[in-house]
Amino acid sequence: MALPFATNMRFKFSSLALSLQVILIILFAIFVSYDTPHHEDSHGNSTHQEDEFIKLYPLFQDVHVMIFIGFGFLMTFLKRYGFSSVGINLLIAALGLQWGTLMQGLWHLHDGQINIDIKKMINADFSTATVLISFGAVLGKTSAVQMLIMAIFEIAIFACNEHLVVTLGAFDVGASMIIHAFGAYFGLAAARVLYRPALKNGHENEGSVYHSDLFAMIGTVFLWMFWPSFNSAIAEPGIDQQRAIINTYFSLAACVLTAYAFSSLVEHKGKLDMVHIQNATLAGGVAVGTCADMNIHPYGAMTIGFIAGIISTLGFKFVTPFLASKLKIQDTCGVHNLHGLPGLLGGLAGIVAAMLGAKEGASAGIQAAALAATIGVALVGGAITGFILKLPFWGQPPDQNCYDDSLYWEVPLDEEEQPNHYQEDQSKMKVDA
Amino acid sequence: MALPFATNMRFKFSSLALSLQVILIILFAIFVSYDTPHHEDSHGNSTHQEDEFIKLYPLFQDVHVMIFIGFGFLMTFLKRYGFSSVGINLLIAALGLQWGTLMQGLWHLHDGQINIDIKKMINADFSTATVLISFGAVLGKTSAVQMLIMAIFEIAIFACNEHLVVTLGAFDVGASMIIHAFGAYFGLAAARVLYRPALKNGHENEGSVYHSDLFAMIGTVFLWMFWPSFNSAIAEPGIDQQRAIINTYFSLAACVLTAYAFSSLVEHKGKLDMVHIQNATLAGGVAVGTCADMNIHPYGAMTIGFIAGIISTLGFKFVTPFLASKLKIQDTCGVHNLHGLPGLLGGLAGIVAAMLGAKEGASAGIQAAALAATIGVALVGGAITGFILKLPFWGQPPDQNCYDDSLYWEVPLDEEEQPNHYQEDQSKMKVDA
Amino acid sequence: MALPFATNMRFKFSSLALSLQVILIILFAIFVSYDTPHHEDSHGNSTHQEDEFIKLYPLFQDVHVMIFIGFGFLMTFLKRYGFSSVGINLLIAALGLQWGTLMQGLWHLHDGQINIDIKKMINADFSTATVLISFGAVLGKTSAVQMLIMAIFEIAIFACNEHLVVTLGAFDVGASMIIHAFGAYFGLAAARVLYRPALKNGHENEGSVYHSDLFAMIGTVFLWMFWPSFNSAIAEPGIDQQRAIINTYFSLAACVLTAYAFSSLVEHKGKLDMVHIQNATLAGGVAVGTCADMNIHPYGAMTIGFIAGIISTLGFKFVTPFLASKLKIQDTCGVHNLHGLPGLLGGLAGIVAAMLGAKEGASAGIQAAALAATIGVALVGGAITGFILKLPFWGQPPDQNCYDDSLYWEVPLDEEEQPNHYQEDQSKMKVDA
Repeated sequence: MALPFATNMRFKFSSLALSLQVILIILFAIFVSYDTPHHEDSHGNSTHQEDEFIKLYPLFQDVHVMIFIGFGFLMTFLKRYGFSSVGINLLIAALGLQWGTLMQGLWHLHDGQINIDIKKMINADFSTATVLISFGAVLGKTSAVQMLIMAIFEIAIFACNEHLVVTLGAFDVGASMIIHAFGAYFGLAAARVLYRPALKNGHENEGSVYHSDLFAMIGTVFLWMFWPSFNSAIAEPGIDQQRAIINTYFSLAACVLTAYAFSSLVEHKGKLDMVHIQNATLAGGVAVGTCADMNIHPYGAMTIGFIAGIISTLGFKFVTPFLASKLKIQDTCGVHNLHGLPGLLGGLAGIVAAMLGAKEGASAGIQAAALAATIGVALVGGAITGFILKLPFWGQPPDQNCYDDSLYWEVPLDEEEQPNHYQEDQSKMKVDA
Repeated sequence: MALPFATNMRFKFSSLALSLQVILIILFAIFVSYDTPHHEDSHGNSTHQEDEFIKLYPLFQDVHVMIFIGFGFLMTFLKRYGFSSVGINLLIAALGLQWGTLMQGLWHLHDGQINIDIKKMINADFSTATVLISFGAVLGKTSAVQMLIMAIFEIAIFACNEHLVVTLGAFDVGASMIIHAFGAYFGLAAARVLYRPALKNGHENEGSVYHSDLFAMIGTVFLWMFWPSFNSAIAEPGIDQQRAIINTYFSLAACVLTAYAFSSLVEHKGKLDMVHIQNATLAGGVAVGTCADMNIHPYGAMTIGFIAGIISTLGFKFVTPFLASKLKIQDTCGVHNLHGLPGLLGGLAGIVAAMLGAKEGASAGIQAAALAATIGVALVGGAITGFILKLPFWGQPPDQNCYDDSLYWEVPLDEEEQPNHYQEDQSKMKVDA
Repeated sequence: MALPFATNMRFKFSSLALSLQVILIILFAIFVSYDTPHHEDSHGNSTHQEDEFIKLYPLFQDVHVMIFIGFGFLMTFLKRYGFSSVGINLLIAALGLQWGTLMQGLWHLHDGQINIDIKKMINADFSTATVLISFGAVLGKTSAVQMLIMAIFEIAIFACNEHLVVTLGAFDVGASMIIHAFGAYFGLAAARVLYRPALKNGHENEGSVYHSDLFAMIGTVFLWMFWPSFNSAIAEPGIDQQRAIINTYFSLAACVLTAYAFSSLVEHKGKLDMVHIQNATLAGGVAVGTCADMNIHPYGAMTIGFIAGIISTLGFKFVTPFLASKLKIQDTCGVHNLHGLPGLLGGLAGIVAAMLGAKEGASAGIQAAALAATIGVALVGGAITGFILKLPFWGQPPDQNCYDDSLYWEVPLDEEEQPNHYQEDQSKMKVDA
């Protein structure tokens, strides 16, 4: 009878993680090679391939920081879920970058091999982003086992959808659609299936504390700073890549002003709300993604960021409560507001930019088809994955233990902090007295 | 009657932020373009301009981290002002980089346009640094509205002074004078005007707590590590840029040793003081700025760092209390010790280096003129801005609410942390008992 | 009588630090120059040397972040030793990079001069890593004076051993042997000499608290992300360097899965242990170091990471208690598990790779000799240094004050946090009542 909530992960988790890793090593042995340049002998004179690797490596590292520090710490805002946020983030992403290398590479085999170069590493990191976004929707309500399973399914589906969008001929250099909207709607669909009625009035651990909000700001600021690298890392070198950097830089700056303005506008007494600041300031990076490398002019990018900051903040204030109460979607981190709505806005901006001729070869119809396909695949894929995750033997936490690290982690001092220590001191003092 | 302390920012703040952002978008639409390379057709063969962009981009990102993580977290040392420190830092810098692009670019129009390239982005980030330094002087005693206004004025005045210094023919590659000394004396002049007699004996929230000092160290260490990028980002590529990196690297290392030594020397029982470690270890980066790209030899750079660490630590111990008690300048973060005195030292080092012929074309007289002009412009500009900020309708906090996030932010759990939670538990236990 | 525990560092520490810095400046004046390119006149057309500097600079900065943020914050896991962890880390590394420049450079003089280029800066940072690793073994049980002395001795010995290994003709691009194993066994030998019987049953300050574990994760994640730069920074540009990046990337990813799996497997109720996650996830970076640039194939790198994650976690569970109880080695941070065992594994992997012909010119016998020599030099050097550190006038802390910042630092609020504040409030409430 206790099966559904058997949360001791000792054998389930370790055997799953080890099996996955063994399978990955075998698949890598069969399919994955280094990308050997054509002219190995031309020493001294660096080849084009060598140049690209070392030129893009700093952008790769920026993206890497976004994935592991950015996403990881952004989710530490919960008062008692920081270990899981940053720890399971690392676990999922470490699995995901290996699995993503395979799933994306299988669409581009050369002589039956996936040849690893810097772009494949950037794309592998990108593929993990989708899972980390979806993780935000179900944060605190799932086990590590469930997250490993979600990573396997979501990255496989993501790679198919990405291939579909590329095949259609759509543009999405900063991945507003194929990563952000995809990850958000996949996660929301899974969250819908995993709905927990007992949490509909919230949970005492669902809030933040002062220092956990500061930890989350580490994530926010690293994401904010390095987003120009995210949106430009796989752009065509030269003017396209530069445009992607410039547009993202200014979109994010504009977005900050509107996120702050609307946070103050919608809150009691005009105070700023950390949830908005941590998330809505980033919406400009998401929303400018699809047309980041297009000729939309800096003021065009700023306009996109301006709108993104507004819709994201309003999303937190009005859409999230609606989703929770009416649609039974409990979105822990509000990924709908950071990735969902701004991802849609990015897709729409791409359609408009294509209409206005901002990108040679872009078609509004194809952009729209890519957006629609992405949302559809994400919702269906997320729902199916949700049903798999709902099977009652993956160690999901009971309602009362949600948002609580101590279920899956050794937490110092009986799950509590120094106050205990001082309470003990107090007790001693009382005894002494 | 309640007007001077009407701190509800709901409409004032949001309407100001939105208006500024709308105006910026309009000005960008008129004045700002991408920097299009001359030969767009030469695909495959990267142009000089393209090379510069991608070569300097990692240095830009280092500077970006200094502005947003470095300055932001350095100021989180206050026990109850972390949200404002990192949050308002982000707000000011996001506004400032847009406004700085315009203010600096207007001096260098091409066909009536500002063409954005990587150096303009680096300079835009630089221009925000001045405001963030000044922010440190008035931290905890001003509202977000006041800071937006200060950003507008300070960056405009900074851009004029920078243009003046360049026109004079002075050298200041790492901006000891035009950013650090300028930002510090501007902020101190404003702080003088905004003097609060009621705070002359301190304020209960003005100190740090254990974890807030660790958050501040995140800022310190990122500033420390990336300062070589700050001092070299706009240097002439090649040997000048390399010298700027090497000199800053060794100046900072030497500065750490003297900052620690003097912290122990001046403190009670020889203990180290976090305030010194967080700030004075960085003085070597400030002080070597003006002559960073000059041929001062590594040991010359180390000597500058050696002195900077000493004067900065002594500044905290002896000058800051003097400024507060005698000159009525309440310098919250001690920016005079991190940016003011080391900035002056940097200016003087530049004069000496010019005398010694360490830089072709440099003149000691012109360097001295640039230093004097910068201090003068900063003091006058800061004082005028201070009077504007003193107008009684910008929502500045009442004395008793200084250094307190809860005035402007939704702070979790009635402005307090988990202890409350445990107190409740205790209460429950008492009730149970 | 109080001499051995005279922990007031006022004059000892400050005079030592100042003397060292003055000596360093004098030695730099005599021995250290910029690396001037051969053709200074060829402006516009960047030389090979100039290209190398700016190409490797981002990798240098990644290594820099690992040294100062990575190592510094990794050690903040202790509840009351965060100031020392990140602060003394900065101090040691700032001294060490200057001293390392000299000690390594003296083996490669040109016309009696050490010409600073980017590789010398990277190597200087590397040399500090050995001391920071050893610092982890004695963390909480030593004074800043002792650490300055250890830095001087250890870096000198490290530079000799490195020269020996290079002279032998061994390969160790990512320094599994000459940095990680060396630093670990040096530190363990010193810790053995400094054994404190009174701490054999632990110390109340030796554990972590919730937020200190999160600060430590900042260190972990930055180390994890930038390890590919560490292992490739001084590799031959081109294919070797790319291989080093790719191998490290995948080794680390595989290592995460096995570290998590074994953490859950060996812990009570299958919970994850933060100590394992903070450290064992990095073992893959250490272990793949020696053969990072060799043709071991991605799956070979993953296999090394797979094993490293297992032995590191098992090391924490079984070897560390054994070392403490049987060998009287109290290894505060478990550096034996993060650097010692994985460093040995890396040395062994290098021997096997040489046998398999993965590196042209590599010999299994020479690799084995290099490994044996490194361990031997480290153990002897560490033991000698330990005896020097044991001299009773370096201000080492008494047993009861171990792991406690307040001995050497001004700590806010009588060494305690806000709880005090609330206790006061409670007291007031009681008084009011």
